[in-house]
Amino acid sequence: MTEGLSGSFNGKIHSLSVRIYYEDTDFSGRVYHANYLKYCERGRTDYLRLLDIQHEQLASLDVPLFFVVRHMELEFLAPAKIDDILQIKTHLVALKGVRFILAQNVYCGSDLLFKAVVTCAIINGQGKPTRIDADTRAKFQTQLA
Amino acid sequence: MTEGLSGSFNGKIHSLSVRIYYEDTDFSGRVYHANYLKYCERGRTDYLRLLDIQHEQLASLDVPLFFVVRHMELEFLAPAKIDDILQIKTHLVALKGVRFILAQNVYCGSDLLFKAVVTCAIINGQGKPTRIDADTRAKFQTQLA
Amino acid sequence: MTEGLSGSFNGKIHSLSVRIYYEDTDFSGRVYHANYLKYCERGRTDYLRLLDIQHEQLASLDVPLFFVVRHMELEFLAPAKIDDILQIKTHLVALKGVRFILAQNVYCGSDLLFKAVVTCAIINGQGKPTRIDADTRAKFQTQLA
Amino acid sequence: MTEGLSGSFNGKIHSLSVRIYYEDTDFSGRVYHANYLKYCERGRTDYLRLLDIQHEQLASLDVPLFFVVRHMELEFLAPAKIDDILQIKTHLVALKGVRFILAQNVYCGSDLLFKAVVTCAIINGQGKPTRIDADTRAKFQTQLA
Repeated sequence: MTEGLSGSFNGKIHSLSVRIYYEDTDFSGRVYHANYLKYCERGRTDYLRLLDIQHEQLASLDVPLFFVVRHMELEFLAPAKIDDILQIKTHLVALKGVRFILAQNVYCGSDLLFKAVVTCAIINGQGKPTRIDADTRAKFQTQLA
Repeated sequence: MTEGLSGSFNGKIHSLSVRIYYEDTDFSGRVYHANYLKYCERGRTDYLRLLDIQHEQLASLDVPLFFVVRHMELEFLAPAKIDDILQIKTHLVALKGVRFILAQNVYCGSDLLFKAVVTCAIINGQGKPTRIDADTRAKFQTQLA
Repeated sequence: MTEGLSGSFNGKIHSLSVRIYYEDTDFSGRVYHANYLKYCERGRTDYLRLLDIQHEQLASLDVPLFFVVRHMELEFLAPAKIDDILQIKTHLVALKGVRFILAQNVYCGSDLLFKAVVTCAIINGQGKPTRIDADTRAKFQTQLA
Repeated sequence: MTEGLSGSFNGKIHSLSVRIYYEDTDFSGRVYHANYLKYCERGRTDYLRLLDIQHEQLASLDVPLFFVVRHMELEFLAPAKIDDILQIKTHLVALKGVRFILAQNVYCGSDLLFKAVVTCAIINGQGKPTRIDADTRAKFQTQLA
């Protein structure tokens, strides 16, 4: 399976490759812990991109919609280092009225380095929780087990 | 109570002021979500600094010791924006053989924006969990309720 | 001279203290080179803040104005490291119709680590170069030698 | 010409694709200016990688060698925005005893957004300028016009 700049799906799991550069590391010689959240955000964005869920399109609806992160549970299992190529694996766990939950696992080869469970909310332009629109809901529902 | 560049204690709660600059914000006009982890790391570092727990000193012990983050639970309650001055409040929740748990709350004025519960492990130079040394343990124990 | 969170002026030179944390360093054990641009941007922002030149106020003029960086010349002289406290020193070098030039020097104690000459342009909401308004110009002119 | 995760050469010009994510943008809705230095550093690293000049190998020589940035001249011509795919184009301009100069241009489609001329020095483990080793020099010399 070829993987482009936006990653690819294998069944319902999206995978994105991320290279580790100098900018990602810190004084410890390993990846700075907060940077795993950046890789997960890249993974979520490309997961949604390949499902044809576009930030700009949602923002231009009659009731504009935005996604925000509400809750995260993170486990740091092993460190990544300079020049590593990581795989950011993302899949949908649950879809509720005004929120959805993604599981994101970061691998280097077969080693699991980092696990996140990410709860996102859908808000309108005033920041109020809002039900997801029917079209986007239909796209998400194809990804539930 | 004057607060220097490393923050200050009020009882057992350490507080550090952080200004929000362009670098901290994203396309949404608010602070990029992963950056709260940076502010918490600054807060933890200065919390330890004022307790006289020095990274460089621990790294130079006969058995060198390092702190690493193992687990985080994060709640994003409200967004910070450009020019805001945030207060990063840190206190010790628990101290076990090879790990300690800190609670970190980020405020803008009286508004609670972000909550983190952070579990740190103590490892040696080979990355193995290691009991904290007696001197550092004594410093931590003054901070338990 | 006491220095607050936004730094202070000594004559026409603004100085801001910046602490180096884990997030600032890279695999080399020193500060990641691009981060000096962040410290300079913090310094410019607080330089303007203390001159009472406010981004939000300029953006709300009849012809909204914004500052953007157009050109930089950078010299990396010596590296900063974890826990260092840097001084970001900023002063105005020139003021022209649609642009101004700042010199920014980064010190650790008496050691000069980094030098930047930064040319900023003033643009309107459509991104076109625009003459600076009279009020802001007057504030800048107090800072020329 | 297919381009992998490390980019590709077209003649003596290396090109690397970089996607713009939320993390790259700021409050202005565009890419934060300092982040172009990160993209250039990614480009330089992959330029060297495809020339088989490996940081880890140089660091393990009898006289360990490291590359550091000494000087940069930067022009910010037009802004990049969320979801853009940028091309980071890198080529060697000059090779001297203890330094080399790279030109790096950042494009979005056919639009030139950013230009950098980057002078790198070669240093030993004590930070002293050092002549490049014969093997690395030979690899660089294939890239001169």
